Amino acid sequence: MALIVHKYGGTSMGSVERIQNVAKRVAGWHAAGHQMVVVPSAMSGETNRLLALAKEIQADPDPRELDAIAATGEQVSVGLLAMALQAIGVDAVSYAGWQVPVRTDDAFTKARIESIDDQRVRADLAAGKVVIITGFQGVYTAPDGRAHITTLGRGGSDTSAVAIAAALQAEECLIYTDVDGVYTTDPRIVPEARRLEKITFEEMLEMASLGSKVLQIRSVEFAGKYRVKTRVLSSLTPPDTPVAEQAASGTLITFEEDETMEQAVISGIAFNRDEAKVTITNVPDRPGIAYQILGPVADANIDVDMIVQNAGVKGTTDFSFTVHRNEYQRALQVLNDVVRPAVGGGEVKGDPKIAKVSAVGIGMRSHVGVASLMFRTLSEEGINIQMISTSEIKISVIIEDKYMELAVRELHRAFGLDQDGQLPAVN
Amino acid sequence: MALIVHKYGGTSMGSVERIQNVAKRVAGWHAAGHQMVVVPSAMSGETNRLLALAKEIQADPDPRELDAIAATGEQVSVGLLAMALQAIGVDAVSYAGWQVPVRTDDAFTKARIESIDDQRVRADLAAGKVVIITGFQGVYTAPDGRAHITTLGRGGSDTSAVAIAAALQAEECLIYTDVDGVYTTDPRIVPEARRLEKITFEEMLEMASLGSKVLQIRSVEFAGKYRVKTRVLSSLTPPDTPVAEQAASGTLITFEEDETMEQAVISGIAFNRDEAKVTITNVPDRPGIAYQILGPVADANIDVDMIVQNAGVKGTTDFSFTVHRNEYQRALQVLNDVVRPAVGGGEVKGDPKIAKVSAVGIGMRSHVGVASLMFRTLSEEGINIQMISTSEIKISVIIEDKYMELAVRELHRAFGLDQDGQLPAVN
Repeated sequence: MALIVHKYGGTSMGSVERIQNVAKRVAGWHAAGHQMVVVPSAMSGETNRLLALAKEIQADPDPRELDAIAATGEQVSVGLLAMALQAIGVDAVSYAGWQVPVRTDDAFTKARIESIDDQRVRADLAAGKVVIITGFQGVYTAPDGRAHITTLGRGGSDTSAVAIAAALQAEECLIYTDVDGVYTTDPRIVPEARRLEKITFEEMLEMASLGSKVLQIRSVEFAGKYRVKTRVLSSLTPPDTPVAEQAASGTLITFEEDETMEQAVISGIAFNRDEAKVTITNVPDRPGIAYQILGPVADANIDVDMIVQNAGVKGTTDFSFTVHRNEYQRALQVLNDVVRPAVGGGEVKGDPKIAKVSAVGIGMRSHVGVASLMFRTLSEEGINIQMISTSEIKISVIIEDKYMELAVRELHRAFGLDQDGQLPAVN
Repeated sequence: MALIVHKYGGTSMGSVERIQNVAKRVAGWHAAGHQMVVVPSAMSGETNRLLALAKEIQADPDPRELDAIAATGEQVSVGLLAMALQAIGVDAVSYAGWQVPVRTDDAFTKARIESIDDQRVRADLAAGKVVIITGFQGVYTAPDGRAHITTLGRGGSDTSAVAIAAALQAEECLIYTDVDGVYTTDPRIVPEARRLEKITFEEMLEMASLGSKVLQIRSVEFAGKYRVKTRVLSSLTPPDTPVAEQAASGTLITFEEDETMEQAVISGIAFNRDEAKVTITNVPDRPGIAYQILGPVADANIDVDMIVQNAGVKGTTDFSFTVHRNEYQRALQVLNDVVRPAVGGGEVKGDPKIAKVSAVGIGMRSHVGVASLMFRTLSEEGINIQMISTSEIKISVIIEDKYMELAVRELHRAFGLDQDGQLPAVN
């Protein structure tokens, strides 16, 4: 008997039949004695339909109006799910974000949750009701008293669910999704990939930001900040799967390094092809040069990920960084038009055909040799490393993109992730 | 320079292009110096889509959840219209019912407006903004502080527009619709039917309740209660039609009998085929018999329209009344199963093949001879009158439904409605 939050994505809510399945699943948990709060997304396709309609009317839609429109998808979902529960005899009530209220700042289309009032929800739960709350949205009350609907940005329903779990001090937040957990890497690339029973918050954060699409990164940050036990699990199991079985499935995001358990050195291999590399060669090697190069890039609102500066000979240096592939052309343009005229330098070069591959693991902290094993493995396959970046629990490399799958497979094997994630004896 | 409320129906909001046309029309009024409030319906088909979805989930949908779902159609409309105005350079802001707020009672799916807060709307208007408010909906705040979305029932956007015009003491409320005004009768039946430039509130109320579908009857009641100058006019004119031309078109609902103008005796002929007649013969002719017959009918939630009791010979009477055709079978059943066993009586008979035809006109008050002209006209065509009901400004008759069109045409001609609505010299 605990307070549990369930989150269901748009695919799970995609048809009347699927909504009825969600209701059956929630009813099972309710019948098992839990106090249930459910956060469903809009029916799949609905948010895109609404945004497309808005863009047809206004090329650059007014953010306040856009949020008011986009929020309706979830409002329909919560109402339908409440009905589906009532139809099978479970008392349920729905709330839009403004009704709870879920208070946010005024950053329309990408608002941040500031507080959640739990009073009404708790009263409903005490009365035995299932409470259904819209994901993705909240309300901003201006100093003049006007209330405005806000949305949290795409994928925001994960964040809503975790934030609501935090506000209610829920026992656990279960994110039902179309994968059955977090894997050591993408099983489509490495068939031997294993589902992780647990992953630490820090590892999950790295996995999420490195391209593993299981959870929206802000929801992971929220889970970390408020220490919300969050579980990613499959929405594809039969809705009448025993509650105990569901509760033990998927991947749990934890906050303590488990002392009793043999900790894997590496938890997973993450990767993405979203980035492009740009280089400006032979710039003067002097203090402040990095700022002079990256300042204009930041001014153009281009996010930079990895940065490498190699001091060369004769007082010059080559300076490289990666940007999202969508901003590759703009980044080249800024370097050519603004940076080179200002700082001097040789050529501006670029390469969109790169991939980033990362080894992530909290065990890395206490183990040397992870980097060397990674570099040796890639070298044995003849894969050249173009850039390297490290943090306390991850090492990322940039390689030519045609080698990405090969690199992921070989690193997965080399780090023993198909077994238990222990470093192999040979090192 | 006045405060003007526009209302647009679902057809006018039915596509991006049509929404853009509404924006152009509103922009024209705004450019002419008016303070503009706009109340649009949901895009055509949207409310039906949402209700169908709900009924698929729950055969008898929970009214609170149904309202939360149904209200989203208008929320999308107001956002899109605000964007369409901004896209052509007009500052605009949208509000859902709960944001104004438009306060209602707690009768979900058929709520009644209790009050409208005009403070924020006035501030926006003073700042030069066009204010767009959802029709059809409001908010009910329970004693425990919980706010619930309510809807006013189908056609409720007319009522919203008139109520908002009343709260803002607007100069005029313009209901844009797919007909260009109120006619002396349906032009599809009588090609000579004339558009009325003015109609009194009382006449409009009778026309609306008698089957003329131009305006939702509750909106007419609201217009009457708060004396809102309301105009029904065409949404099919080009959106850049000069404002002065639009302002003089359509039909204005007025509240004073115009002394200087020659008042028409009859303003229009209304009709419908929605009713059925039921009769119980030879019931005892004693005090209280009407209550004994109609009590069980009311208990079964069947609305009764016209009632006729004819005292017969030998202390018995035939008692007839009309009900909506959808409730014909249930009415027969109540008479057979409950009423006849209790009060005695002869046969229970019914006839669903009837039509109601009514002559409506405020001028009837001061003119004798309207009834006799009506009865004579029908008699000359060999049309038998089955029931008669009168009020101060209307006479309704029930006739066999196959004669309905003939009766409407002949009465329209007999009352001179193709001319000026004066009684003919011969009487």
